[in-house]
Amino acid sequence: MSDFIHERHKPISALEEPRELIVACCPLRSNVNLSRIVRAASCCRVSKIVTTGNAKIDPKIARDGAEHLPFSNHRSLAPVLKQLKADGYRLVGLEQTTNSQDLHQYQFVRKTVLVIGNERQGISDEILALLDDVVEIPVYGMPYSYNAATATCMALYEFCRQFPQG
Amino acid sequence: MSDFIHERHKPISALEEPRELIVACCPLRSNVNLSRIVRAASCCRVSKIVTTGNAKIDPKIARDGAEHLPFSNHRSLAPVLKQLKADGYRLVGLEQTTNSQDLHQYQFVRKTVLVIGNERQGISDEILALLDDVVEIPVYGMPYSYNAATATCMALYEFCRQFPQG
Repeated sequence: MSDFIHERHKPISALEEPRELIVACCPLRSNVNLSRIVRAASCCRVSKIVTTGNAKIDPKIARDGAEHLPFSNHRSLAPVLKQLKADGYRLVGLEQTTNSQDLHQYQFVRKTVLVIGNERQGISDEILALLDDVVEIPVYGMPYSYNAATATCMALYEFCRQFPQG
Repeated sequence: MSDFIHERHKPISALEEPRELIVACCPLRSNVNLSRIVRAASCCRVSKIVTTGNAKIDPKIARDGAEHLPFSNHRSLAPVLKQLKADGYRLVGLEQTTNSQDLHQYQFVRKTVLVIGNERQGISDEILALLDDVVEIPVYGMPYSYNAATATCMALYEFCRQFPQG
């Protein structure tokens, strides 16, 4: 008999304290990408998602994340990020830039805002200028870039790996 | 002036030796999920993807991965996995089961086949019985499960983190 029997409704992993991780998205081209991010962020128990532009969350993709993940939509991201910085959050962009750090080695702090760029333009220069750190994920082959939602999910995974209990 | 200037076409990370990681997919419901996996797997320089069923890769989603990632499609996964095991690969399923290990702590070996289950049914019992290990990703909130492609991308990230040079 197999050692491995399906257990698809295991109890979730409890957090000892609430996550103080916020995901903040520049205006994205694709609400599919946004909705994928919402599902994963809700699974990771991110405390909040900040969206901009014509953000619409598709509950068929985001599933229960659409209801359970607090979100706020804003016309512009810069004032929100400035306020979060004043509240003690570290602003960390996910992007390929000069001085960006390898996500494999990067040590997050608990109070982090993970800033996600547009699929084509990335994080705007105005927002880049506000960031404390930029992290990037090593790429080894074609097409030389991860989808924006895929990269976000990898960064969420890394954050949870560093703070498995919150 | 900002410390962070866009560098969206950085040289890729070189591997010291080719990755001996293979991704093997049970028949998936969604060719969108499959195509997302192909793009990320190609970025991670996975050596091959094995698909089953009516697998069709959408180059709009998989991008250059559709051309650059070697793949083979099979009617049934079990004989392929048995052959790969005979060739020295460790068969590692991504699933929630009894005796599954936390991906945060799991130590991969270089010659690994990462086995991905169907979005609804997961990995079939026949395939589970062939596996050496099962890994699962901690879930902290609703909807209590990652999308199949999202979970795959997180596992690919973890593998690359453990073997950043291949």
